[in-house]
Amino acid sequence: MGETKPVLPRRYHRLRDVLNRRQTDLTVLLEDVHKPHNFSAIIRTCDAVGVFAAHGVYNEGDVPAFSETAKGSEKWVDIHTHPDLETAVNHLKAQNFTLYATHLTENALDYRTIDYTKPSCILFGAEKWGVSTEAMALVDQAIYIPMLGMVQSLNVSVAAAVILFEAQRQRLNAGFYDHSRFEPEVRDRILFQWTYP
Amino acid sequence: MGETKPVLPRRYHRLRDVLNRRQTDLTVLLEDVHKPHNFSAIIRTCDAVGVFAAHGVYNEGDVPAFSETAKGSEKWVDIHTHPDLETAVNHLKAQNFTLYATHLTENALDYRTIDYTKPSCILFGAEKWGVSTEAMALVDQAIYIPMLGMVQSLNVSVAAAVILFEAQRQRLNAGFYDHSRFEPEVRDRILFQWTYP
Ligand SMILES: C[S@@+](CC[C@H](N)C(=O)[O-])C[C@H]1O[C@@H](n2cnc3c(N)ncnc32)[C@H](O)[C@@H]1O
Ligand SMILES: C[S@@+](CC[C@H](N)C(=O)[O-])C[C@H]1O[C@@H](n2cnc3c(N)ncnc32)[C@H](O)[C@@H]1O
Repeated sequence: MGETKPVLPRRYHRLRDVLNRRQTDLTVLLEDVHKPHNFSAIIRTCDAVGVFAAHGVYNEGDVPAFSETAKGSEKWVDIHTHPDLETAVNHLKAQNFTLYATHLTENALDYRTIDYTKPSCILFGAEKWGVSTEAMALVDQAIYIPMLGMVQSLNVSVAAAVILFEAQRQRLNAGFYDHSRFEPEVRDRILFQWTYP
Repeated sequence: MGETKPVLPRRYHRLRDVLNRRQTDLTVLLEDVHKPHNFSAIIRTCDAVGVFAAHGVYNEGDVPAFSETAKGSEKWVDIHTHPDLETAVNHLKAQNFTLYATHLTENALDYRTIDYTKPSCILFGAEKWGVSTEAMALVDQAIYIPMLGMVQSLNVSVAAAVILFEAQRQRLNAGFYDHSRFEPEVRDRILFQWTYP
């Protein structure tokens, strides 16, 4: 009679456990990352390390479609697109995030020296151009992954994985995945949405 | 008059420095990783962490072509394809490598518990099927990257990056990139080949 299909207890418990590990204070901001397989792989990595919401700004063209590479992760990571970079940055700063741009500048710090247990947003740049000058002016700190070979940069979804799994490591050590980080009412509301999408 | 173009000293020094950081005892074995952008991104990551030679076995179809994602890294990483898995594994075991398969089995170890300063070869599986049963029977140990979300696996080039950058971290700490790991004659021969390809 009802419109909702019954949810198996196993599925419900799995959704609840995953939601209990979600980190509301770890996120990414993607600046014109436009290749579907890169965008998809990054969202899939976000899911794996427990990012609750991801952010994007698309000045050049549309938000990319998800490819097979996403493996459905787009259903479990809230994706916010912002009209422009300044709006996105203001939104994130109002939530207390420190913004890190992944960019090789003179003052960039090795990504392994950052404390990702603090509220952290990592900004990644477009495949061709990298992080824009505008973005560099708005963030708190530049960070980089040490490159020891001939090619000067990594694929963007690779760079995102390297940094997000360092954050996962730090947050596992700090016990951040052991207890829900949501207010109980918020958790229950989201769990309901996940269960009956 | 000569057939070889002069090489600028700066280029020569760069090639020499990169070669001096190459690790002959860290490698990957790719089992039917067939999407060009995954194959390319993995070789680019190999270059970035200093892998000297990478290995592949292609039972299903041809070795993939390199895509734009490789950014030329295929010129700086020696790529060996083997006729079958057993030949590849014997070749690597004869060189003293411990073989790690990235696969979620009961006895798999968290990838962060492995000592990658020892001669290490990491095996990655096909996008669709993962590591084969045949491969699992031939390797020394299964390892996995902890997944905390809804999707059960990572994109293969993402998984490779996460593990190879853990190896890079351990080898940076151990000073493995500070001095050439080649015999001087071998180093000079390879440097010549890199300089005049
Ligand atoms: C292919 S790169 C852009 C390259 C561009 N030519 C440049 O110079 O910035 C695309 C994005 O990947 C990320 N990335 C690539 N290599 C990185 C590294 N070594 N450290 C940190 N981020 C990196 C950054 O977010 C970068 O904007
Ligand atoms: C998309 S996965 C294959 C998924 C396949 N359905 C399975 O169950 O094995 C492709 C490859 O990526 C690597 N991989 C993906 N997730 C991983 C993880 N969490 N830990 C280690 N390796 C992983 C492995 O090499 C795997 O063979």
